[in-house]
Amino acid sequence: MERQRHQGMAKNTYMRWRLPLVCLLWEVAMIILFGVFVRFSPEADAHWEEEKREMNLTSDIENDFYFRYPSFQDVHVMIFVGFGFLMTFLKRYGFGAVGFNFLLAAFGIQWALLMQGWFHSFKSGKILIGVENLINADFCVGSVCIAFGAILGKTSPIQLLVMTLFQVTLFAVNEYILLNLLHVKDAGGSMTIHTFGAYFGLTVTRILYRPNLEQCKDKQGSVYHSDLFAMIGTLYLWMYWPSFNSAISDHGDAQHRAAINTYCSLAACVLTTMAFSSMLQKKGKLDMVHIQNATLAGGVAVGTSAEMMLTPYGSLIVGFICGIVSTVGYVYLTPFLESRLHIQDTCGIHNLHAMPGLIGGIVGAITAAAATEDVYGKEGFIKAFDFTGAYQTRTPSVQGGFQAAGIVVSLLIAFAGGALVGAILKLPVWGDAAAENCFEDDIYWEVPEDEESEAYHMHNPDKPASP
Amino acid sequence: MERQRHQGMAKNTYMRWRLPLVCLLWEVAMIILFGVFVRFSPEADAHWEEEKREMNLTSDIENDFYFRYPSFQDVHVMIFVGFGFLMTFLKRYGFGAVGFNFLLAAFGIQWALLMQGWFHSFKSGKILIGVENLINADFCVGSVCIAFGAILGKTSPIQLLVMTLFQVTLFAVNEYILLNLLHVKDAGGSMTIHTFGAYFGLTVTRILYRPNLEQCKDKQGSVYHSDLFAMIGTLYLWMYWPSFNSAISDHGDAQHRAAINTYCSLAACVLTTMAFSSMLQKKGKLDMVHIQNATLAGGVAVGTSAEMMLTPYGSLIVGFICGIVSTVGYVYLTPFLESRLHIQDTCGIHNLHAMPGLIGGIVGAITAAAATEDVYGKEGFIKAFDFTGAYQTRTPSVQGGFQAAGIVVSLLIAFAGGALVGAILKLPVWGDAAAENCFEDDIYWEVPEDEESEAYHMHNPDKPASP
Amino acid sequence: MERQRHQGMAKNTYMRWRLPLVCLLWEVAMIILFGVFVRFSPEADAHWEEEKREMNLTSDIENDFYFRYPSFQDVHVMIFVGFGFLMTFLKRYGFGAVGFNFLLAAFGIQWALLMQGWFHSFKSGKILIGVENLINADFCVGSVCIAFGAILGKTSPIQLLVMTLFQVTLFAVNEYILLNLLHVKDAGGSMTIHTFGAYFGLTVTRILYRPNLEQCKDKQGSVYHSDLFAMIGTLYLWMYWPSFNSAISDHGDAQHRAAINTYCSLAACVLTTMAFSSMLQKKGKLDMVHIQNATLAGGVAVGTSAEMMLTPYGSLIVGFICGIVSTVGYVYLTPFLESRLHIQDTCGIHNLHAMPGLIGGIVGAITAAAATEDVYGKEGFIKAFDFTGAYQTRTPSVQGGFQAAGIVVSLLIAFAGGALVGAILKLPVWGDAAAENCFEDDIYWEVPEDEESEAYHMHNPDKPASP
Repeated sequence: MERQRHQGMAKNTYMRWRLPLVCLLWEVAMIILFGVFVRFSPEADAHWEEEKREMNLTSDIENDFYFRYPSFQDVHVMIFVGFGFLMTFLKRYGFGAVGFNFLLAAFGIQWALLMQGWFHSFKSGKILIGVENLINADFCVGSVCIAFGAILGKTSPIQLLVMTLFQVTLFAVNEYILLNLLHVKDAGGSMTIHTFGAYFGLTVTRILYRPNLEQCKDKQGSVYHSDLFAMIGTLYLWMYWPSFNSAISDHGDAQHRAAINTYCSLAACVLTTMAFSSMLQKKGKLDMVHIQNATLAGGVAVGTSAEMMLTPYGSLIVGFICGIVSTVGYVYLTPFLESRLHIQDTCGIHNLHAMPGLIGGIVGAITAAAATEDVYGKEGFIKAFDFTGAYQTRTPSVQGGFQAAGIVVSLLIAFAGGALVGAILKLPVWGDAAAENCFEDDIYWEVPEDEESEAYHMHNPDKPASP
Repeated sequence: MERQRHQGMAKNTYMRWRLPLVCLLWEVAMIILFGVFVRFSPEADAHWEEEKREMNLTSDIENDFYFRYPSFQDVHVMIFVGFGFLMTFLKRYGFGAVGFNFLLAAFGIQWALLMQGWFHSFKSGKILIGVENLINADFCVGSVCIAFGAILGKTSPIQLLVMTLFQVTLFAVNEYILLNLLHVKDAGGSMTIHTFGAYFGLTVTRILYRPNLEQCKDKQGSVYHSDLFAMIGTLYLWMYWPSFNSAISDHGDAQHRAAINTYCSLAACVLTTMAFSSMLQKKGKLDMVHIQNATLAGGVAVGTSAEMMLTPYGSLIVGFICGIVSTVGYVYLTPFLESRLHIQDTCGIHNLHAMPGLIGGIVGAITAAAATEDVYGKEGFIKAFDFTGAYQTRTPSVQGGFQAAGIVVSLLIAFAGGALVGAILKLPVWGDAAAENCFEDDIYWEVPEDEESEAYHMHNPDKPASP
Repeated sequence: MERQRHQGMAKNTYMRWRLPLVCLLWEVAMIILFGVFVRFSPEADAHWEEEKREMNLTSDIENDFYFRYPSFQDVHVMIFVGFGFLMTFLKRYGFGAVGFNFLLAAFGIQWALLMQGWFHSFKSGKILIGVENLINADFCVGSVCIAFGAILGKTSPIQLLVMTLFQVTLFAVNEYILLNLLHVKDAGGSMTIHTFGAYFGLTVTRILYRPNLEQCKDKQGSVYHSDLFAMIGTLYLWMYWPSFNSAISDHGDAQHRAAINTYCSLAACVLTTMAFSSMLQKKGKLDMVHIQNATLAGGVAVGTSAEMMLTPYGSLIVGFICGIVSTVGYVYLTPFLESRLHIQDTCGIHNLHAMPGLIGGIVGAITAAAATEDVYGKEGFIKAFDFTGAYQTRTPSVQGGFQAAGIVVSLLIAFAGGALVGAILKLPVWGDAAAENCFEDDIYWEVPEDEESEAYHMHNPDKPASP
C-alpha cells in the first residue's frame, strides 16, 4: 500500500550502508578523541571540595552549574524542539525536519565540544568541560541548524552530517578569531552564529542549485496542521531567546540585562511583523510564514548587544526594524534570490538569520563604540568589555571598529567555507534525491499510510485503500 | 482552489490598513514611552558591582535574576504556549488561537511594563525594570489571555489589541488598589489575574452577544488532532503552574511552599475532574473539554493562598473541590449562561478562571484570617503578610477582611471595565467577522489548502482537487 | 454520526460509576492521609528564618529550592509531556495516551509522596516534604509511566489506577531496600525506575496476554501526524534527561557531572540508533519507532553512573552500545517476545527501559567498583558514595557488589509484583475492552467527528458526512 516512487531514477538514495557507516565510524572517532582529550572541568569533577577551598567559595551554589544550567536547558530546547519543529511546516517533510535536525545536532554537539574545547578549554593536554561548554556546543550547532534551513528537503542525511563536520570546524575557527584575536563581544552570536551560519548555508544552497525544483512546488507548501507544528518551534525559540542571549554572559547584571533586552526586542518584533505581513498582502491577511519566522528576527539582532547597555527602548527599536526587514525580505527578497541569484532558500534563513544577524553585528559595534564610563560605571565598563590585560587601553570606538571587523571576518569565512563545503556536497556519492523527490519524507523514512487513505479505508472497508 | 467565502457580506473584515496602522503606531508609542521612562533596575544595570558593595552582597548569585529567572521562563511558556495552544482545540481556528494570542501578549507585556512600572517601580522619574517586572508583565497579560478565551473566534485582531490596551490599564489600577491600598496578598493572582480577567472577559462577550452564532455551531467543535494540540497547552499550564504561583513570592520558604501547595492542589484536581467528567455523561465517557480545562482549576484556586501556610492537605481539598466545580460548570452552567444570560463563552473561562478565581480569593481570605504566630513563627508571620510599617498592627482577621474586599474590588472593576471596553469594541470600525464566519481562520489568515483535498489531489492527479 | 462500535460485546466497558467511585474515594483517602501525615519541610515552612539561623545560612539562595527547582520542572515535563506524548504515536489512541498518563501520574505522585515519605522523610510522626520529595514522587511515577507503555491501549483507566496504587507501593519498598538497606547509589534510577518499572510492566502485560490482538493490528500503527506528536514526547525526554539524572544528586559537582555525562551518552545514542535503524531495514530507510525510542536508551543506561566519575568518553561508550541494543531489540526481540513468550509490549519498553536499565545497573556497579581515591579525591570519594557512618569501611569493590545485588532485588520485586498485580488486573471487574476494541479512544473518550469525514462534509454539504 506504500506509494511507489521513481526512487533513484537518476539518483541512488539508498542509505543502507552509507549512513550507518558514517554514523558508526564518526561516533567511534568521537569516543577515541573524547577518551584522549575530554575530562571534567574542576566544577564538575569529584575534586570540587578541594577546588572550593582553593577558590574560597563558601557554598555549592557558587558552582557555575547553578548560574547557567537553567539557561542551558532553554537553549537545548531551542536547538532540538525549536529548530526541529520550526522546519516541520512542509506538508510531507516533518520526519526529515525533526529527525535530521536531531541527527545533525547530536553529532554536532560532540564535535563542537572537541573543536571549541581545543580553542578555549585546553589545559595541560586536556579539554576540561563544564556547563558553559555544553551551552557553547549547542550554540555552535545552532549555526548548523540555521544552514540546514536553507537546504531543507534537498539533501541526504549523509550530506547533512558532512556539512555539520565542516561547519562546526569553521565555526570554531571563526569564533576563535573573533573572540580571542579580535577580542570581540558576541555572547548571543549575532555574528558567530547567525551571520556566519546563514551566509554559510546560503552559499551551500547556491552551489547545490537545482534547476528543476519547481517540479515539486506543491510539496514546498504547508498544510493546516503542519503550520501548527511549526508554531511550536517558533514559540519555543521566541520564548527562550532571552536565555539564549544571556546564557554565557558574565554572572550577575550582564545575564540579567541580556535577558531583559532580548525580551523587549522580541516583543516589538512581533508587532511590526504582523503589521507588515498584513500590509504587504493584497487581501490584508496574515501569512503564517512571516509569523513563524520574522517574529524571531528581534532575538537575532540583539545577539551581540543584549548584554551591553543597549537599554530597553534601544531593544524595542532594534526589534521594530527587524520585524519589518525580515517580513519584507520574505515577500520580496526570497523570490528575487531564487529567480535571479539561484539561491533556493527553503526556510528563508536570509530573512530570519542573515539580515538580522548583520544588523545585530552593526548594532553591537555601535553600542560598543558608544559605551562610556558614565553609563557603565568605572568597574562595569571594564568588566563589560573585558578591558583588562592586553586590552587595558582599548577605547570604545576602537572596540566598535573591531566589532565591525568581526562581521567582515564572519562573512568571509562563511562565503569561503560555504563554497568549499558546497563543492564537496555536490560530489555524486552522498545519496541526495532527484529534484522530483525533494521535500518528501518517504525517500529516507518509513512513512506510515496516509491518514486520508487510511480514514478512507476505515470507512469503506470494501474499497481499496489508496484510490 | 481556496474556498471562497461570503467575506464581509455584512461586515468589512479587510485588515490591510487598519491592523498595520494600529500595530505600528502603538509600537512607536511604546518606543517613545520606553525611551522617556524605562531603565534597568540596579540588578540589571552595569553599575551592579557598586550596588553589590552597597548592599553588602558577596556573590553574584544573590542577584534576583537567579532567584526568579527559571520561574519567569516557565510563566513565559504558560502565556505563549500554554494559553496559545489551549485554545487551538477549535477545528479551524488554530492560527487565530496561537497567532492572536502571540500578538496581544507581545503588545500587552510592553504596555504592562509601563503601567505596572508607573505604579510599582517608579523611582526619580524612571521605571526601573528587572526580572520581577518581566514576570509581572507576563502575569498581567495572562489576564488578557483569559478574557481572550471568552471571545475566541468572534473578534478581529484589532479588537483584541484594543481590549489589551484597556484591560492592561485596568489590571494595573486594580492591582494597585489591591496590593498597595488594601495591602492584600495575591502572589498567584487568584483575584488580580483570574477573577478580574475572567469577569472582565465575560462582560465583554456579553456585550458583544451574537444572536446568530448557532449558524456556525459545527465550527465550534474540535477534531481529533486539534484536541491533541490543545493538550499541549493544557499540560504546560498544568506543569508550570507551581512556577506561576511561586514566581514573585518572597525568596526562600515562600517560593518553596507556594510551589508545593500548587503541585498538590493540581494533582487532586485531575482526579475529581476525571471522576465528574465520566459521571456527568450518560455514556460514562471522558470529555476532552473537561480534561483540557477543569484539571487546571486547582492551580487558579490556590493563587492567593499558595504562599501561605495552606498546607499540602489544604491544597488537596481546594483542588478536590475545584475539579468538581469546574467540570459541573462546563456541563450545566455554560449552556445556561449562553441560553439565558446571552454570555457566549467560547473556552468556558467561567468554569476555569471565574469560579475557581473566586474560590481562590475566598480561600486566601480564610487562610490569612486563620494565620497564627504559632503556625508561622514570629518572624515568619510578619514576613508572610508584610505586617511592617503602617501595617504593623494589622491582625489576621482584619487581613482576611481586606482580602475579601479585594475580591469585591476586582469584581467591580472587571464588570465596569468590561462593560466600557465591550461598548468600545461594539463600534463598527474594528473589522470583526459576520456570525457565519466566526471560528474560521481564513477571514484573517492565509490558510493553506486542506490536507484532505490536498491528499485527494496527490492520489488522483486527474481529478479536480476540491470535490 | 458517531461511529457505532460493538462496544462491550463480551466486555462491559461502561465507566460511569466505577471510574468516578475509584477517583473520588482514593482522593478522599489522600486528603485524610495528607491531613494526618504531611507537613512542610523546614525549608518550605514559614519558620525558615529561624531554621536559617540555626543552620548558619546567610542567604535565602541556600534553600534547597534553588538547587533543585529547575531540574524538578524539567522532570515534571518529562513525566507529563514526555511520556504522555511519546505514547501518542498510535493513530487512534492519542487521548488515552496523554489523558490516562495524566490521570495515573496525578494520582501516583500523591501516593508516592506518602509512600516515599514514610520511608525517607518521616520525622516525629510527620512526613516533611520539600522540592526533593516532589522530584522523587515524579521519579516514582515515571516507573508507572514506563509500565503503562507495555499495556498501552489494552487496559481501562481503572486498571491503570489500580496498577499505579500497587506499583508505587512496591517501588517505594524496592527503593528503600536498595538505597537504605543495600546502601546503593542510583540517582537517575537505572535500577529503581527503569529496570523495576519495565520488568514489572512486562510481567503485567504477559499475564494480561490477549490471544486475539492481531484483530486490531491496523490500529497499532501510526499515522503521519501522530508520529510528529510522538516526537514532541521523545525530544522533551531526550533534552531534559540530563536534569532527570542530576535532579537529586548531591549539590555542586555531582549534579554538574551527572548532567554532562547524560548529555554525552544521549548524543552518542542518537548516532548508533540512526545507523542501526537504517542498517536493519532492507530498504535502508529510517524507522520512526526507533528514532522515537532507542535514542533515549543512552539516558536510561547512565542513570546509576551519571553522578559518578564515568567520564565523558565512558558516557559516549555507554550511549553507543545502548543505541544499538535498543534498536536491535525493536527489530528482532519485540516480535520474538510477542510470538514466543506472549509478551505484548505496545511501546517496546523492553528495548527502551528494560535492557538499557539492566545495562545501567551493571555500568553503575562497574563504575563504583572501579572508583579510587585518586580519581575522586579523598573527600570526593567519601562524598560520592556516602562512605560515612556504618559504611565508613566499605570498599569500592564491595560497593560494586551491592550495586549488582540491587539489580537482582529490583528484578525479583518487579517479577513478583508484576505477577501479583497482573493477576489482580485480570479480574473481570475493571472494565477493560475486548480485543477488537483495543487501541481505540472511543471506548473511554468522547471522540470528535473524524477530520476526514468532517472535511468531506464541509466540501460536500449535500453528501452524508460519514460515507
